Amino acid sequence: MKLVRLGDPGRERPAVIDDRGVTRDLSSLTSDIDGAFLAADGIARTRRALADDVLPPLRTEGLRFGPPVARPGAVVCIGQNYAAHAAESGSEPPTRPVIFFKPPNTVVGPNDEVEIPRGSARTDWEVELAVVIGRTARYLDSPGQALEHVAGYAVSNDVSERDFQLEHSGGQWSKGKSCATFNPLGPFLVPADEVPDVQALRLRSFVNGEPRQDSRTADMIFSVAQLVYDLSQYLVLDPGDVINTGTPEGVALSGRFPYLRPGDVMEIEIEGLGRQRQALVPARTSSQSSLV
Amino acid sequence: MKLVRLGDPGRERPAVIDDRGVTRDLSSLTSDIDGAFLAADGIARTRRALADDVLPPLRTEGLRFGPPVARPGAVVCIGQNYAAHAAESGSEPPTRPVIFFKPPNTVVGPNDEVEIPRGSARTDWEVELAVVIGRTARYLDSPGQALEHVAGYAVSNDVSERDFQLEHSGGQWSKGKSCATFNPLGPFLVPADEVPDVQALRLRSFVNGEPRQDSRTADMIFSVAQLVYDLSQYLVLDPGDVINTGTPEGVALSGRFPYLRPGDVMEIEIEGLGRQRQALVPARTSSQSSLV
Repeated sequence: MKLVRLGDPGRERPAVIDDRGVTRDLSSLTSDIDGAFLAADGIARTRRALADDVLPPLRTEGLRFGPPVARPGAVVCIGQNYAAHAAESGSEPPTRPVIFFKPPNTVVGPNDEVEIPRGSARTDWEVELAVVIGRTARYLDSPGQALEHVAGYAVSNDVSERDFQLEHSGGQWSKGKSCATFNPLGPFLVPADEVPDVQALRLRSFVNGEPRQDSRTADMIFSVAQLVYDLSQYLVLDPGDVINTGTPEGVALSGRFPYLRPGDVMEIEIEGLGRQRQALVPARTSSQSSLV
Repeated sequence: MKLVRLGDPGRERPAVIDDRGVTRDLSSLTSDIDGAFLAADGIARTRRALADDVLPPLRTEGLRFGPPVARPGAVVCIGQNYAAHAAESGSEPPTRPVIFFKPPNTVVGPNDEVEIPRGSARTDWEVELAVVIGRTARYLDSPGQALEHVAGYAVSNDVSERDFQLEHSGGQWSKGKSCATFNPLGPFLVPADEVPDVQALRLRSFVNGEPRQDSRTADMIFSVAQLVYDLSQYLVLDPGDVINTGTPEGVALSGRFPYLRPGDVMEIEIEGLGRQRQALVPARTSSQSSLV
């Protein structure tokens, strides 16, 4: 099964796609797919409701996919977690996980437009495996405990503006990671126990149909279990929090490809977790956000 | 007037302290002091309710101060915004604002215990002026527009673990800023229009009663208006978001003072915005958070 949120931004309805591909309304079980739902055994309850056949089918024509988890409390990002990407960025592979944050209001639906910020010359793509936390994790005793705290996985695009990231903030990366629309997430939240081996997934990205990144999660320097364990030694991971686990080689920062421009189309996908498609547009000129 | 949230963690009740020092219950006006309340003209409505004398006094004996704003969507921090602190940290003053984030689950009440994380040898204090956003700010045209987007100000302690910050994350600072309890906030949210000159406030910190930091917001490299303007060029500031505007010289990182140990007491204050007091304790040993 796959958990989804369908509808206009801020008004998404929770739903589940069953194993026959039928989308079913989850509104009778929960008002939304969020940290509280995941912490309260939401995935197991959804599975029971599917088995009991009590969830009505939902007409999905024309409905937008929202991000599959609402209002994450934090979006933790891992830097340089693939050796070949660290090399193309001009860095040594890290010896401990490198972290930074994006504000959660960067999270948008998987097929929403992505805005190229004002003044940007170097907007870039980053396909990443996103981990969604299901149980509070703090001071785990070992990486062996980590995956019990994971609700599921999703596709994430950690969109980045390289000048803002590397030149505009004294070397602290977040300024180039935080622009509006810079974190397409979804379409699906796939329960962790339905992903047989999270370290054996192919990740790919494309721009205007041409291949860019093409790697496997086996190439991560720090595995998902190691990341959750390591983070839990430094901070409290809450249900609904999202971890972007780093991107493999093949981004524009490498110098091998041009940066993104209005009219371009990004597509990214992870084996078993679905595919995203974003059209690039200029940043909206209003001084007010449309995200409220 | 001063907005406050009183009660046990996660169960705080909104209240206001009027100009005669009487604490009054705000529950009839709002269920909480958060971004939605601030965006919906909450401060003006509170002022009207005080003028109309419709808010009942609240018995406050034994009630804890919570953070004065609930569930910020983001906590943006500014690095090295005081020249003398940049120098004591071994850095040149920045030419543009340097930003990083703390996860919002670090925010605790102003007098709550602060935990020294496991494995910490260098836990440090940082008194900072916190800006609380009242209106969505994106692509402001000039710093002159910035303060209209500020709801008010508060005292913030940007607690930091220097090894985690500088040595454990490839130079990205957030790992040393994100530990549980690392952002005491409050006691008050003072409305922006009741702070005559936000760039003329004295900030001080003390450890075990001995003075540490003692500076003025006049010494900021980038003023509050410049910070809000600059941030709005890179990200969307939402109502309820908190900006920690940087700390002045006089932290342990300077080498002039010892780092914090269990049993120590931090006190920090900003002129007109109140005073905090935190006892330092070892990190809780449970693998579960108490913050939910």
